[in-house]
Amino acid sequence: MRIGTALLNGQPAVVAAASDDMAAAVHAFDSMETLLAAPRETANAIVEEATASAPRFAVAELTWLPPVPRPGKVLCVALNNSANPDRIISGPPTPALFTKPTTSLTGHDTPLRLRASYGRVHPEPELAVVIGIGGSDIPHDRALRHVYGYTVFNDLTSPTLRAEDTFHYRAIHPSDSEPDGVRYVESWVTYPARYKGSDTFGPTGPWIVTADEVADPHALRIVCRHNGQIITDDNTANLRFSVAEVIAFVSSYMTLETGDVIAMGTALRRANSGGGAVQNLDLVARGGTVEVEIEGLGVLRNHVEHR
Amino acid sequence: MRIGTALLNGQPAVVAAASDDMAAAVHAFDSMETLLAAPRETANAIVEEATASAPRFAVAELTWLPPVPRPGKVLCVALNNSANPDRIISGPPTPALFTKPTTSLTGHDTPLRLRASYGRVHPEPELAVVIGIGGSDIPHDRALRHVYGYTVFNDLTSPTLRAEDTFHYRAIHPSDSEPDGVRYVESWVTYPARYKGSDTFGPTGPWIVTADEVADPHALRIVCRHNGQIITDDNTANLRFSVAEVIAFVSSYMTLETGDVIAMGTALRRANSGGGAVQNLDLVARGGTVEVEIEGLGVLRNHVEHR
Repeated sequence: MRIGTALLNGQPAVVAAASDDMAAAVHAFDSMETLLAAPRETANAIVEEATASAPRFAVAELTWLPPVPRPGKVLCVALNNSANPDRIISGPPTPALFTKPTTSLTGHDTPLRLRASYGRVHPEPELAVVIGIGGSDIPHDRALRHVYGYTVFNDLTSPTLRAEDTFHYRAIHPSDSEPDGVRYVESWVTYPARYKGSDTFGPTGPWIVTADEVADPHALRIVCRHNGQIITDDNTANLRFSVAEVIAFVSSYMTLETGDVIAMGTALRRANSGGGAVQNLDLVARGGTVEVEIEGLGVLRNHVEHR
Repeated sequence: MRIGTALLNGQPAVVAAASDDMAAAVHAFDSMETLLAAPRETANAIVEEATASAPRFAVAELTWLPPVPRPGKVLCVALNNSANPDRIISGPPTPALFTKPTTSLTGHDTPLRLRASYGRVHPEPELAVVIGIGGSDIPHDRALRHVYGYTVFNDLTSPTLRAEDTFHYRAIHPSDSEPDGVRYVESWVTYPARYKGSDTFGPTGPWIVTADEVADPHALRIVCRHNGQIITDDNTANLRFSVAEVIAFVSSYMTLETGDVIAMGTALRRANSGGGAVQNLDLVARGGTVEVEIEGLGVLRNHVEHR
């Protein structure tokens, strides 16, 4: 099942795609959060009935919102592609994560509202997990039971703002010799709210594909296109840490809640046809349409609109 | 007015402190979010009536939740104390921000549930702003109109997890010479979800003091105590970027929503009585009770409980 959130009569509503072209309203649930919190089998039966019988909407004509419009948190795994270790001089042996604010989320086919003041902005194509049942200290062998489904995510990033919000500074550390003394340690630290979290930096969707329809989340081709040209052509087989590993790890620090989104990290492999890396694609300068497609999940498409 | 959220009959409810010791339920609002979205004068009149006449609860016996239990986002300003510039070798001339997930929030008088695996964890005493009316591109001279009130925040930080989640790596940048080529630039980047966002890393409260009762948010003594000993004794006069500057700046990148929380940055000045800096206070090793007190706002107290 492919279940998302779209505007119907100007209000957010749960919709389910009955085919690639047509979708049905699922009136039994007033929001995606309500659906995610309902018993799985009950929800599935309701969605199936709606897609079989309810009035149909053209997928292309709906105004899509992020599938979960206001999740408790959006976590993103950094540097989680098997191509990364060659680039890492030192880094953690565990998943490293940051959060994007929910205000950065935007739906399929909505504008990316970029400003010249953002400097360079590039797309980062990613598989995202939507949490069904939340929890803390979720064991690895039960982690996938907490996945409601998968969606497509574009982790827009401004390397210009990243550089601006990086401090080279003397961090305060406790002294080694005096209990109340301090020493200064020259450090670098980067703060991500602007470079990862500005408005429309988190396109998500169009919908969630329920986990039962994704045989293996680590065997999905993932492609990023700009104005139709393939930039990235990778596979989720190249994720360094798996979905289960990330859920088990992060839930030992942060409680996962129903509707939380975890973006699994950037697909990196460049297309053989050339066209550069995603880092070559400055959406502020070049504008146009960017698509992320994941095998079995769908195509997330957005166009640049200068603010 | 001092307005917060506490459990009444096991459910989150809006409460208002009528004195330092006694609070009243404000039944007219089913949540803080509803109150914040209501017209200001109507809400004030309802709260005033409730505190004057409704049944009273002992402040010390209530179970406090974060004043806004589930804000859209919690933004924190980094390195925003006037003592910082001496430590900054290079950094932005604008406020640098990160977000904490809402699951990290916890109320007044609740346990800080820390684990040995977190390494060192220290408190960071901060003034926090609660947004009333949201907006984008808020002009500086109108920014304070968007402040519903102020509260006390403790930005718990694990320098151990910060060090773990720092990468020294070769970042991919566009080539200077070939349009589709890339070059590698040796960089440092830190990801804050764990070191700033683990469960209970965001104590907030006990309540919000409405903006009309805070004559100048930049003239408030701010103190941090551990087991009664003063560690930090600073004043919000030492904030580098003001509340209005931060609101104007951040809202040009991220839409601010009703209920959003902005923590203004760590108060740093060490108490004359000794006792080290907050960085000397490892709550994992030392346990105990940590308090942040801000003049006119109240005392936020939490105790360490080892998970």
